[in-house]
Amino acid sequence: MPRVEIYDTTLRDGTQGEGISLSAKDKVKIALKLDELGFHYIEGGWPGSNPKDLRFFELIREHQLKNARICAFGSTRKSGTAADQDENLQQIVRSKAPVATIFGKTWDFHVTHALMTTLEDNLNMIEESVAYLKQQGMEVFYDAEHFFDGFIANREYALATLQAAKKGGAARIILCDTNGGHLPNEIFDLVSAVKQVIDLPLGIHCHNDSELAVANSITAVQAGVIQVQGTINGYGERCGNANLISIIPNLAFKCHIPSLPEESLAELTDLSRFVSELANMHPMNNQPFVGGSAFAHKAGVHVNALLKNPQTYEHLEPEKVGNRRRVLVSELSGLSNLVYKYQESDLGLGLGLEKEDNRKLLDELKELENQGYQFEGAEGSFELRVRKAFYDYQEPFTLESLKVLIELREGTVYSEAIIKIKVNGQVMHTAAEGNGPVNALDNALRKALEGFYPEISSFQLNDYKVRVLDEKEGTGAVVRVLVESGDGHSSWGTVGVSPNIIEASWEALVDSIAYGLLRLENKGELATDQIINGFIRNKC
Amino acid sequence: MPRVEIYDTTLRDGTQGEGISLSAKDKVKIALKLDELGFHYIEGGWPGSNPKDLRFFELIREHQLKNARICAFGSTRKSGTAADQDENLQQIVRSKAPVATIFGKTWDFHVTHALMTTLEDNLNMIEESVAYLKQQGMEVFYDAEHFFDGFIANREYALATLQAAKKGGAARIILCDTNGGHLPNEIFDLVSAVKQVIDLPLGIHCHNDSELAVANSITAVQAGVIQVQGTINGYGERCGNANLISIIPNLAFKCHIPSLPEESLAELTDLSRFVSELANMHPMNNQPFVGGSAFAHKAGVHVNALLKNPQTYEHLEPEKVGNRRRVLVSELSGLSNLVYKYQESDLGLGLGLEKEDNRKLLDELKELENQGYQFEGAEGSFELRVRKAFYDYQEPFTLESLKVLIELREGTVYSEAIIKIKVNGQVMHTAAEGNGPVNALDNALRKALEGFYPEISSFQLNDYKVRVLDEKEGTGAVVRVLVESGDGHSSWGTVGVSPNIIEASWEALVDSIAYGLLRLENKGELATDQIINGFIRNKC
Repeated sequence: MPRVEIYDTTLRDGTQGEGISLSAKDKVKIALKLDELGFHYIEGGWPGSNPKDLRFFELIREHQLKNARICAFGSTRKSGTAADQDENLQQIVRSKAPVATIFGKTWDFHVTHALMTTLEDNLNMIEESVAYLKQQGMEVFYDAEHFFDGFIANREYALATLQAAKKGGAARIILCDTNGGHLPNEIFDLVSAVKQVIDLPLGIHCHNDSELAVANSITAVQAGVIQVQGTINGYGERCGNANLISIIPNLAFKCHIPSLPEESLAELTDLSRFVSELANMHPMNNQPFVGGSAFAHKAGVHVNALLKNPQTYEHLEPEKVGNRRRVLVSELSGLSNLVYKYQESDLGLGLGLEKEDNRKLLDELKELENQGYQFEGAEGSFELRVRKAFYDYQEPFTLESLKVLIELREGTVYSEAIIKIKVNGQVMHTAAEGNGPVNALDNALRKALEGFYPEISSFQLNDYKVRVLDEKEGTGAVVRVLVESGDGHSSWGTVGVSPNIIEASWEALVDSIAYGLLRLENKGELATDQIINGFIRNKC
Repeated sequence: MPRVEIYDTTLRDGTQGEGISLSAKDKVKIALKLDELGFHYIEGGWPGSNPKDLRFFELIREHQLKNARICAFGSTRKSGTAADQDENLQQIVRSKAPVATIFGKTWDFHVTHALMTTLEDNLNMIEESVAYLKQQGMEVFYDAEHFFDGFIANREYALATLQAAKKGGAARIILCDTNGGHLPNEIFDLVSAVKQVIDLPLGIHCHNDSELAVANSITAVQAGVIQVQGTINGYGERCGNANLISIIPNLAFKCHIPSLPEESLAELTDLSRFVSELANMHPMNNQPFVGGSAFAHKAGVHVNALLKNPQTYEHLEPEKVGNRRRVLVSELSGLSNLVYKYQESDLGLGLGLEKEDNRKLLDELKELENQGYQFEGAEGSFELRVRKAFYDYQEPFTLESLKVLIELREGTVYSEAIIKIKVNGQVMHTAAEGNGPVNALDNALRKALEGFYPEISSFQLNDYKVRVLDEKEGTGAVVRVLVESGDGHSSWGTVGVSPNIIEASWEALVDSIAYGLLRLENKGELATDQIINGFIRNKC
């Protein structure tokens, strides 16, 4: 099988997704990452429509790319304007990208109802625009917008537009399901029909409006296209573009068709999260292949079988895409899940508990989940609870009192936290400010503990999430705070639940520090003179 | 085309999704809704594995269903136990559901490695379990677990398991892609192969691990299955089950194959949100067909064409699935979006602004979005900004000072808010408690305003969401608060942004009340004697 080219348009079509916005610098970071992993083409933006996009092309020229060719996007020239006078085409040339990808109209209805011009004029616009960009030394890809709708509506005209692009000198013709409305069997039949008459390498560009973009892209490859366009995590307008993060492993592991270099496949989970972080989108937990739940098992009967053999309930080894297996504890859990959870514990919780104790712990966890706790993603709080319940664990400090003040004076907000804690009999009473109440609390807690545990200066809060439960209650609702902390090497999650956001945050922050200290102690990295007598006696 | 049966397993397989948990009462509410819309089968739970599920079957028996038949789920009998002695089968019978759906092993590898029994023993288990349940008067569906993997591994044995179910008297055989690893072309070929040798109505049950569950389900129908199993919103273990909310309209509008009654299709958006609310899952904004973004348009060029003709960029009329078109304002917007936004405004903002003003407003909105504001979902705040910028709008009150205190004393947390506001020269200085700081703030604000605007007692907060932006900053990060308010008839969204969660909440709460009052005033429902002189002069 020949290698399929992967054409990423996260930086252009992806940014049309609701809630997604990338700075020019973020775009460069993403482009460099894609290049490193061997993506073949990276569409950087639409210089004629968005000044930020021009900045991207300037910045990326300062880098020597190893694998990818950068593409500038735009439309065919305007009706009534010569190609060399068209502002949009000029901007594509000014981008100095090696590749130009321009879209034009395939669907006769669009030519007459959106462009408001004649069918023949549109053919000239396509041919002349492609030819002009080619004369400027660019490789030109032609995106046939609404190809499938157009082909169904007027087959002869749709094919004429592709011939116009070919005559202009296009290197690839990309068939676009712009509205995302077509079915895999239609895609297969129509791609096959085009292959019979158009003698040029073809590509596919799908949207996910019918939840079929991944299937349609793969089907198009099976019908003979050699380029797949899509975005990381399927970001894009409306319901998104075709999700490359699913298409690439499906091609590699299911169809045995190569695209990215093999060693890049195990980087897909990282890539997905890297892009979601820069795009400031929450990673989708149930995302195929790379989501936190993609290889997470909850049903007791599954976990039981998995303990015997992972192949029983997994379509792929999670490591192949850089993901990992997780087992969840919940009301649907049997003892199998708890046993597995112990086995994967970072701190080496043994299998030493009696069956009776396991049952008790499971009941306690279920009760906490009823209250709104969620230990999926908060493994730190889970382990602390297990240790408190069954091992000789003592907290590194106790809270005596806590006060938070927020005041708005003359247009400025002040936040202050006052806390009194006790560490092994010694009391520390201190206060700190912050740019919000939780930040003030965090600062005060660290200030109070630093003298006892200097290691906590290496702990950072990576992520702070607030989820309002029972949202019908408005601001009176219970909130769950999830905190993700790290020390540069690894990370851990903790959780707090309360109707009071400050109390829930406090709970998660305290667990975060307690668990971080426990990890250090367990690895023997807590200097002995800093271990307060009686604190950590939980070796098991 | 014969009607395809829709078999919903949200209440059983759906609840295995991470973060999903439904009470027995919630399950009944969902079942009644599905019945009302004409779903053919509703799988209520696995009575043998979960006591909560038995409670569901008791509760649902109190209702007379109009369309659906309730199914109880379970496994074939244990190896070495007679069917009439098997606890799991007994519980299915005790559920008194009219239909039993039992799963058994198809894949030889599973029989020997998970069940740990012989291939022949497994055939007996299948046949005897089906026969026993049938003798008890139930209609029996047989779920062939891992059918596709099993068929590829050992075709002869896989078919023998189906023959065993048939001999036992199964009314349907459901082919399951349990691990979610197969491609549409495989599904088509294998379903076709089974149809040639098994003379029983077939069903399909897909999982979404390869992002192909919707495509696979539709392909199976095209290959001849007459029942599709799936869940609302695709909830389910790992990456979820096949999403019925996408499958149903794809079958109806793309394949022209009927399943639910036609009048139910326009209820799909409501159904999707109803279930996500009960499951306490955030609705997925980019969900095909029913998501808030599914028919949302951001790119200027699209909006421009849409204004001319909606068919240009929509694969389906949103009303057909009960959804609606939205146009977003963002840095990618052109003036077209702003014009469209005015047109759809509840408050009848005219087209009266000068082009220059529109450009200025667009720039201001882009700058606010850079700071973290998001007007998608916060149309109330958007309209208030437009009115402040260009119309003679005056706020209904101004803030003089604000203080919030949170204190932990003897294990209890106290939250108190003190505010001083001014309404048309009159000062109101008051305080209130709450079960958290934002709730205290909300209570104090309402207390202060009630005397001036008694209507606000009908406003409720429906939803309060906190999103931490720039999460790398931990608790020092900027937060965005989105508030959704309602008055029983309709709802509106407002937004606040600040590094301080209290300030961001305050901003969104103030907008919420101001916008609610503006709506009443606009509809002439604000009693004239309650309109403070000079407040609302923004008729345009």
